[in-house]
Amino acid sequence: MSQQRKRSYDPVALRARILDVAFAAFQTRGYHSTSTHDIMREAGITGGALHHHFPTKKSLGVAVIKERVAPAVEEAWIAPVRRAPTVLSGILGAFDAVAASVDERGVVLGCPLNNLAIELSLMDPELQAAVDQVFKSWRAAIAEKARSEESFAAIKMSPDELGTFVVASYSGAIAMAKAQQNSEPLRTCARQLAFLLENRGRAPARRS
Amino acid sequence: MSQQRKRSYDPVALRARILDVAFAAFQTRGYHSTSTHDIMREAGITGGALHHHFPTKKSLGVAVIKERVAPAVEEAWIAPVRRAPTVLSGILGAFDAVAASVDERGVVLGCPLNNLAIELSLMDPELQAAVDQVFKSWRAAIAEKARSEESFAAIKMSPDELGTFVVASYSGAIAMAKAQQNSEPLRTCARQLAFLLENRGRAPARRS
Repeated sequence: MSQQRKRSYDPVALRARILDVAFAAFQTRGYHSTSTHDIMREAGITGGALHHHFPTKKSLGVAVIKERVAPAVEEAWIAPVRRAPTVLSGILGAFDAVAASVDERGVVLGCPLNNLAIELSLMDPELQAAVDQVFKSWRAAIAEKARSEESFAAIKMSPDELGTFVVASYSGAIAMAKAQQNSEPLRTCARQLAFLLENRGRAPARRS
Repeated sequence: MSQQRKRSYDPVALRARILDVAFAAFQTRGYHSTSTHDIMREAGITGGALHHHFPTKKSLGVAVIKERVAPAVEEAWIAPVRRAPTVLSGILGAFDAVAASVDERGVVLGCPLNNLAIELSLMDPELQAAVDQVFKSWRAAIAEKARSEESFAAIKMSPDELGTFVVASYSGAIAMAKAQQNSEPLRTCARQLAFLLENRGRAPARRS
């Protein structure tokens, strides 16, 4: 208890707690359905403390995107793709891990980036730019991995376009998974991507 | 003016006007950011009239999904795919028409189904089921078209999985288009789908 109290006077920890609470609330209920009062109550802080760190709800939204959503995409997608043996195995591994986590939880909250992209892109240019930047980093990480693979160069796909296409397939699959509250669309899309990309990968080999 | 007045006493026309106003408001601002008061004001009706047709905001949401969102998906996707010469040309035509309309308008509102799927799926089982039903009809229409094509059977893709994969790619592409406010992700994904499906389509022919 005294530990908790102490943490609430530590400005760095307090700021982190506000971001954690806001990230969870935006993910489960959405940005618009979460009031600053909800955040204050759930984080156990005063309006003054919230205002000190985040003078506006928008500034909190931008910080959640940059400091919570971007790292979530990094952890679920960018890092696994970078460390995978091939770009395709990295992509399939990321799909599979999300599908497994959905099956385990039994509820699909959706992709935190996709959720906020839909809700905030038309609302404000700064929120839109923050969301777009995370999509761009994600696409770029897949493109970079594809570019580094000799076997990928042989199949004549643009690495940049592959990045866009994979992120689109995943984002749409998780939107449908959210609509039906199970992992089937994620597993189906991963299977189709594997089928199409592996086939494409094999096509030039046949010529030799 | 008298024409407008007359229409507001016609219950069928009044109900249609409420649905039109709600559909537009949900699409531009979202469900949660639209109050029933906004709908009353924008439709020029009283609370009593709104309540008579839609006793709850949820009943209005369900009706918008079934009577406005489902027909929008039918018009933009299901009908064009059905009447196209091949499933692939139907898919590419639908992507292209949306990308062209985005370019013309200069603003990306997003897919009305995807927008509501993200916002409403976790909120209520009836809203979730209504959204899911539209996704299922959309996927089924693509699957049915693929199943009817002899050349498609030869490439050994599951028509049902193709339907899921195409709808996912489109939904994610339009979410990214919304995040960057231009049509590039739609055009990129259409190009990649054509590239992968055409290549897959050609692969078995090489064997003969």
